[in-house]
Amino acid sequence: MKTPEEYIESLRDDREVYLDGKKIPDVTKFPRFKEAVEHLALSYKMAQDPDLRKYLVSTCPETGEEIAIFYRLPQNETDLLDRREAIYQVSRYGEGVIPFIKEIGTDAIFALRMIAPQVDRKHGTEYTQRIRRYHHYAQKNDLALAGAVTDPKGDRKLYPHEQENPDVYLRIVEKRKDGIIVKGAKTHITSSPLANELVVLPTRNMTAKDSDYAVAFAVPVNTPGITLIANPEHYSNDSFERPLSAKHPIVHAMIIFDEVFIPWERVFLCGEWEFAGPLVQNFATWHRFTGLCYKAPVAELMLGAAALIADYNGVARTSNVRNKLRELIIYLENIYTYSKIACYEYKKVEGIAMPNPLHCNIGKYLFADNYHLMLKYIQEITGGIGGTCPSANDYRNPILKDKLDHYLCGRAGVPTENRLRIVKLIRDLTATCESGVHMFGTIHGEGTLEAQRIMIMREFDITHCVELALRAANLR
Amino acid sequence: MKTPEEYIESLRDDREVYLDGKKIPDVTKFPRFKEAVEHLALSYKMAQDPDLRKYLVSTCPETGEEIAIFYRLPQNETDLLDRREAIYQVSRYGEGVIPFIKEIGTDAIFALRMIAPQVDRKHGTEYTQRIRRYHHYAQKNDLALAGAVTDPKGDRKLYPHEQENPDVYLRIVEKRKDGIIVKGAKTHITSSPLANELVVLPTRNMTAKDSDYAVAFAVPVNTPGITLIANPEHYSNDSFERPLSAKHPIVHAMIIFDEVFIPWERVFLCGEWEFAGPLVQNFATWHRFTGLCYKAPVAELMLGAAALIADYNGVARTSNVRNKLRELIIYLENIYTYSKIACYEYKKVEGIAMPNPLHCNIGKYLFADNYHLMLKYIQEITGGIGGTCPSANDYRNPILKDKLDHYLCGRAGVPTENRLRIVKLIRDLTATCESGVHMFGTIHGEGTLEAQRIMIMREFDITHCVELALRAANLR
Amino acid sequence: MKTPEEYIESLRDDREVYLDGKKIPDVTKFPRFKEAVEHLALSYKMAQDPDLRKYLVSTCPETGEEIAIFYRLPQNETDLLDRREAIYQVSRYGEGVIPFIKEIGTDAIFALRMIAPQVDRKHGTEYTQRIRRYHHYAQKNDLALAGAVTDPKGDRKLYPHEQENPDVYLRIVEKRKDGIIVKGAKTHITSSPLANELVVLPTRNMTAKDSDYAVAFAVPVNTPGITLIANPEHYSNDSFERPLSAKHPIVHAMIIFDEVFIPWERVFLCGEWEFAGPLVQNFATWHRFTGLCYKAPVAELMLGAAALIADYNGVARTSNVRNKLRELIIYLENIYTYSKIACYEYKKVEGIAMPNPLHCNIGKYLFADNYHLMLKYIQEITGGIGGTCPSANDYRNPILKDKLDHYLCGRAGVPTENRLRIVKLIRDLTATCESGVHMFGTIHGEGTLEAQRIMIMREFDITHCVELALRAANLR
Amino acid sequence: MKTPEEYIESLRDDREVYLDGKKIPDVTKFPRFKEAVEHLALSYKMAQDPDLRKYLVSTCPETGEEIAIFYRLPQNETDLLDRREAIYQVSRYGEGVIPFIKEIGTDAIFALRMIAPQVDRKHGTEYTQRIRRYHHYAQKNDLALAGAVTDPKGDRKLYPHEQENPDVYLRIVEKRKDGIIVKGAKTHITSSPLANELVVLPTRNMTAKDSDYAVAFAVPVNTPGITLIANPEHYSNDSFERPLSAKHPIVHAMIIFDEVFIPWERVFLCGEWEFAGPLVQNFATWHRFTGLCYKAPVAELMLGAAALIADYNGVARTSNVRNKLRELIIYLENIYTYSKIACYEYKKVEGIAMPNPLHCNIGKYLFADNYHLMLKYIQEITGGIGGTCPSANDYRNPILKDKLDHYLCGRAGVPTENRLRIVKLIRDLTATCESGVHMFGTIHGEGTLEAQRIMIMREFDITHCVELALRAANLR
Repeated sequence: MKTPEEYIESLRDDREVYLDGKKIPDVTKFPRFKEAVEHLALSYKMAQDPDLRKYLVSTCPETGEEIAIFYRLPQNETDLLDRREAIYQVSRYGEGVIPFIKEIGTDAIFALRMIAPQVDRKHGTEYTQRIRRYHHYAQKNDLALAGAVTDPKGDRKLYPHEQENPDVYLRIVEKRKDGIIVKGAKTHITSSPLANELVVLPTRNMTAKDSDYAVAFAVPVNTPGITLIANPEHYSNDSFERPLSAKHPIVHAMIIFDEVFIPWERVFLCGEWEFAGPLVQNFATWHRFTGLCYKAPVAELMLGAAALIADYNGVARTSNVRNKLRELIIYLENIYTYSKIACYEYKKVEGIAMPNPLHCNIGKYLFADNYHLMLKYIQEITGGIGGTCPSANDYRNPILKDKLDHYLCGRAGVPTENRLRIVKLIRDLTATCESGVHMFGTIHGEGTLEAQRIMIMREFDITHCVELALRAANLR
Repeated sequence: MKTPEEYIESLRDDREVYLDGKKIPDVTKFPRFKEAVEHLALSYKMAQDPDLRKYLVSTCPETGEEIAIFYRLPQNETDLLDRREAIYQVSRYGEGVIPFIKEIGTDAIFALRMIAPQVDRKHGTEYTQRIRRYHHYAQKNDLALAGAVTDPKGDRKLYPHEQENPDVYLRIVEKRKDGIIVKGAKTHITSSPLANELVVLPTRNMTAKDSDYAVAFAVPVNTPGITLIANPEHYSNDSFERPLSAKHPIVHAMIIFDEVFIPWERVFLCGEWEFAGPLVQNFATWHRFTGLCYKAPVAELMLGAAALIADYNGVARTSNVRNKLRELIIYLENIYTYSKIACYEYKKVEGIAMPNPLHCNIGKYLFADNYHLMLKYIQEITGGIGGTCPSANDYRNPILKDKLDHYLCGRAGVPTENRLRIVKLIRDLTATCESGVHMFGTIHGEGTLEAQRIMIMREFDITHCVELALRAANLR
Repeated sequence: MKTPEEYIESLRDDREVYLDGKKIPDVTKFPRFKEAVEHLALSYKMAQDPDLRKYLVSTCPETGEEIAIFYRLPQNETDLLDRREAIYQVSRYGEGVIPFIKEIGTDAIFALRMIAPQVDRKHGTEYTQRIRRYHHYAQKNDLALAGAVTDPKGDRKLYPHEQENPDVYLRIVEKRKDGIIVKGAKTHITSSPLANELVVLPTRNMTAKDSDYAVAFAVPVNTPGITLIANPEHYSNDSFERPLSAKHPIVHAMIIFDEVFIPWERVFLCGEWEFAGPLVQNFATWHRFTGLCYKAPVAELMLGAAALIADYNGVARTSNVRNKLRELIIYLENIYTYSKIACYEYKKVEGIAMPNPLHCNIGKYLFADNYHLMLKYIQEITGGIGGTCPSANDYRNPILKDKLDHYLCGRAGVPTENRLRIVKLIRDLTATCESGVHMFGTIHGEGTLEAQRIMIMREFDITHCVELALRAANLR
Repeated sequence: MKTPEEYIESLRDDREVYLDGKKIPDVTKFPRFKEAVEHLALSYKMAQDPDLRKYLVSTCPETGEEIAIFYRLPQNETDLLDRREAIYQVSRYGEGVIPFIKEIGTDAIFALRMIAPQVDRKHGTEYTQRIRRYHHYAQKNDLALAGAVTDPKGDRKLYPHEQENPDVYLRIVEKRKDGIIVKGAKTHITSSPLANELVVLPTRNMTAKDSDYAVAFAVPVNTPGITLIANPEHYSNDSFERPLSAKHPIVHAMIIFDEVFIPWERVFLCGEWEFAGPLVQNFATWHRFTGLCYKAPVAELMLGAAALIADYNGVARTSNVRNKLRELIIYLENIYTYSKIACYEYKKVEGIAMPNPLHCNIGKYLFADNYHLMLKYIQEITGGIGGTCPSANDYRNPILKDKLDHYLCGRAGVPTENRLRIVKLIRDLTATCESGVHMFGTIHGEGTLEAQRIMIMREFDITHCVELALRAANLR
């Protein structure tokens, strides 16, 4: 398995990454990427820690090699609970901002491994072998792997083939003897500027007329024709002012595929349009499970910070505050509970234990749909100081520091600095640019709220409920 | 184990039961109790059913006897999952109205078995033996057992000893050589007019000054001095008009203890006030778990009925309706999920596997707190006919029947009668007197919403969340 | 203007009314209608009261006659505020259950008076004169007038002409020299069994193919071919047990028109399908305004009862209770405020001051959409006794009365009887069959929630908002 | 009345303002204040605009002079509606970010003018004359006037005199012949670094022991001993990237009073502790009314931006989107409606027409309590691009611009740039640092949610509701 240093070195490969309008020569040396690189290296660093490696290291049930646990194809409930724990622990290690480096890529690989046998049986293709080989290659090299799924979509009401601009969904523009040429873009691709490879999937169900859009493949980030437009700018590295985002910036990118060549052994779907929907649904389940696992520390942080500021403000025992803390507890327990029950009640598909799709969708829906309400609760507990707190630099000015220490104290016994640091944490968690990204990310990451709404309806079998109602109404 | 006939026969014991102001000579012969008796006998009937007895019959881990599963003291996760399944299946057998006959009584017994060793260790008492003997006696005789916990409470802000009227909490008025004399009342005691015995517990935490109120015991329903004021009147036995409540009336009673003698071997707490709080908390956990298990079929019925009327009205595919069905699914899944996770993450106390208190409280809170919203969704889907639907007798009048069949049809292909029966079911489920009782029962049964709010705060250990926040704020 | 006695006498006209499957010979003598007749006579009684008649008596701006205020065609803000006050005061006089006797009928007349000139201008018809003459006739005779709008609807997704059964919307089956023959049914027609005449309108927008369904007219209730199936049965006349519904039962009916003849002078729309939609929208605005006015005392009663039981239980000052009372206050103030602003910002159409449609729709939506939540709050404050309270007859039994007085007391100083009466009131208000009718009525009365959702979108002009956004985004 | 230039010149007075730890020599020349100065000058600029001055110019009913309308002491409903319109129009002029320059200061003056006669009658003081003179002075000089009310508060559960640190509420430390010396701080003081004077009020009710804290006065910003710590830093002046905050930054400050001398003629309360509560309640009513007026354009902007992005994304007609737009409409209409009804139902106190306190509190509560939910709706409609949209500088790079135009298009016919600008607007409105300030400001500005909760309970007279319930329960 790779060391953090090896991981960082592996990123020096002439990839084409832009930031805020300028091309970055080397992502590992670029000042505004420094904290992001360190943040993403955390996952590799944690695997070297004697106390923590137990969470991150496993063996491959197919090859017997020691591998990063994220690459382990789950066979049963225990494997899923272990994957859950690994994602949870990495997210706690990142203080609630998970260093996404293999989770999403393996979500995509697992989805492909589940669908490939079905495509092969119908079409006589050989995707099962290909994706298995790719899976083993990636785990052997302990790759930093991003999953690239969301297309820009143009007019959201139209199928790919109905769009005025044919490129708003990524598509095959040419099939050659040695591979295919693809064109298009993928948006919001987490960690991609600092990943080794991308696993690319279609983003929606399709019709026969969309078959050029039914394409899945893996590709190194530095492949010619791939341009990444990274964002956001890293707003601050002052870890007093922005305790969370200064240390743990998240990096997304829009990725443009400008007629990129993909050799056949890296192609995992190519025109079999009827499998585009099932493939992305499988991915969605894996990815929402990942979402459920890594969001628990986010909610823990929200609850912990709210409890601390309530205490510092002297109001921890008021009914108004306790009601809000209780809602934060229920919010957190919903995340815990649905991620666990999704393991206990897993589904076996093509020999792979997949977390229960209904539970993953409900769990993800509950945390996303209630997120803004929880922010409101935290902000109400914090007080107006969350909006107008003097800056870290004000506090560093000795003249002002004395005044601030004197006037911005909380209940007796709490150092003013502690109170300010928690206020800054809450600000960064709920009300700065990076928390704004989280607001959108919570609603749209791992699929929109509407995507879960649809899946919940689809996955729930209503038969036993209807039967009971008919019986009660004396119609059975 | 008893047959339904033996159970019914066992109720002919000169108990003192009033209904709507009149004394009932024999509860088994009284016309307005007929359906209630049949409903409560269902649990005994189901245990005789070759296909269903597997859910209801078990063995005692202490005596090895065959017993009703409700009496089985849980040792592990499997026992709890089995108890969960038994309560769920009985509730489905009662079409969403559980025939409560041993569940609550054993909730009380288990709570006593958990607390007795602790009292004995501190006070040198012998409650452990007593409650064990009583438990074995009850299971051997397959008793119909009610749990009696809630006192009338008077001024809700005051402790028992602070009340102007000393009798608003049940209390010991005399200790004699052979036993104690108790006085007071218990309210809302489910199934009690048709139970064999009552297990009586205190309803709240207490102070040293309340020690006369810290009393627990078991007593046959026909003991001299016990008066039951049953309710509600059984509103209708027309199972077209009231499909649910005509077949499955629920029976509660207020029970008055007018200086009732309890022999020492039936006394399980007697003045050890500091254990009143822990005892009722244990009971609350068991009982909220029971609540979670039996409410699942209620929610199934709500969802099934809503889906059917949506279909009959021709609107099953509209976004407005689907949004509501989805919320009903999440509501149901919350019930399923929290009742299961409470088993998987049980707590071992005095050798007994208790369902996880935090999960029981959150699960119960979610179904109670969202119940009215779900009623609203069902009623919105149903249409105004839920309020003004012609009566079953209108439909039985041949002149009117033709008109109603003609005008009250739904989408093509659905017999009008089916639509009317589902409308009547929804009415009975959401908008009649018995559903009104359920509205109150959902909010206050198994403890008030506020009781769960308090328990959720108490049971959740916030330490790991606070630590994470301190770390993120650079204060660790 | 009529006296209550004259009103009652006017109902003895051989109308064909069924109740619970049986034909009623004379509605004024029928025991189970006694309280309903008395309730509906309240409006006439109040107009005789020297202190209250100021609210109910006005003059006709067209004829100068003294008339019931409900018949006064509003010319300006003051007229609307007066109509608002009249409906509000009648509803308070009925203790929150409005004796609907002219309100809905005049809602229909006003809608017709607004649309008739438009139809006449396009089609050269003479509806303006006809409806004006009918209006003057009705006010001169101080008629009890019901509005009949809602059709049974069959498959809710289809237009009238698309239905398998052509009669699920009321339609013209024949046009004759002297009038038309109509067939069909209207459902949920409030007070109709005890009204003198019905004003009948179409219930939805229509297409050219639906022209037979575009029909509006007025007709006496006792016209041959009209059958009323009244409901619900009157559940109790024990005003201790059911303080509200025993005194103030509401009466609805399904009305069947079995080839009923309507003379031309009573026909106000006949095939002009493009006006069916605007007509029903006008009616909806008037009727939702009526809804806003009469619901205020309902919400007052809810709030008052909740405040009383909180006080009686000793918990009036707890934060948990105060939060709920505050929500009830906001709920009530929304009703007050939207009904007033709808007057202040009225719209003038064809010389008639119509309450602002946007405000009427939002106000009605807010009270209907939040109603169940308010019920939950009241029930939570009340306690479990709302579900299991002993009956009035229990309390009348002297043996039980002593016990109940002793054990069901509240805080010191409150007579137990007072507490029981308020519990019974809350039960009747939130959890009995008649309150169930109110639950459906609140959601579906004056149009479904979905109807308001659509109207709110339609009535709000978004232009100034879009312009502001474009300007802020530097696109203007 | 002042020109914008005169206003800016008036700020060059050696005031002591810090920003991000550094002292600012001249606020009018400081680069990071440039946009803030321009923004606040808008109010003066608008008064010069021939088309718009009608909203902003009025006459003094006491002196007959032409004055800024904000200074006009309302006498009746029309004056209040005019003040409402003025605040609304200025807020629209600032594109939803009101340039607060006289509104809050006059809120404070009006509160003082209402309370002064009451203090004078009880204590024989001469505050009525003093505040009247100060009011006339301020309006004559068309002063930019901030209101300073909120203290830092220390332990929120304690009264001022109970605090460990006596300075966490501003207090009188010395009374001299010529005036008083005050010490303490005020936080979140909107526009204060760019105001001419401050009107300072106590922030809460007090006891006799807090009399040193019962102090109100006016003071120029550049008075010796006053230090302002301004915030926040102005994050960006790129009006593509941050369309709203680049043009309209808001400026708050924490203000420290380090033994500041106030001459007697500027002192308006000095120890009369029993009036501190009523004074701040009056201020709260005025200020929440101001809040209601200026928030309408904020909600207009939210709705307009949401409608535009829905259209650009091609989803304007989906039920999911329409449901959310409808909620935004209701949100906006609540603001409009409560601000108007507060004028129509004003209260007359000491000859001054005060907006209705109940309506002001409910209206403010509704917009603050629902704000986060509205943000969620807007963000859900927008899509993930709100979180990960490429930067303005990316779009300015010609290479990237072509790609972005190609891939980030919306529905056919919408220029990509328009879509990006609206996305950036939504981002700035809901998810950047300044919108974070607005989140806190919405909840805590004009008083916390809890403050409104308390006021709503206090202002609503429940008598008529309780009477109705007693009557319905046959207890009257």
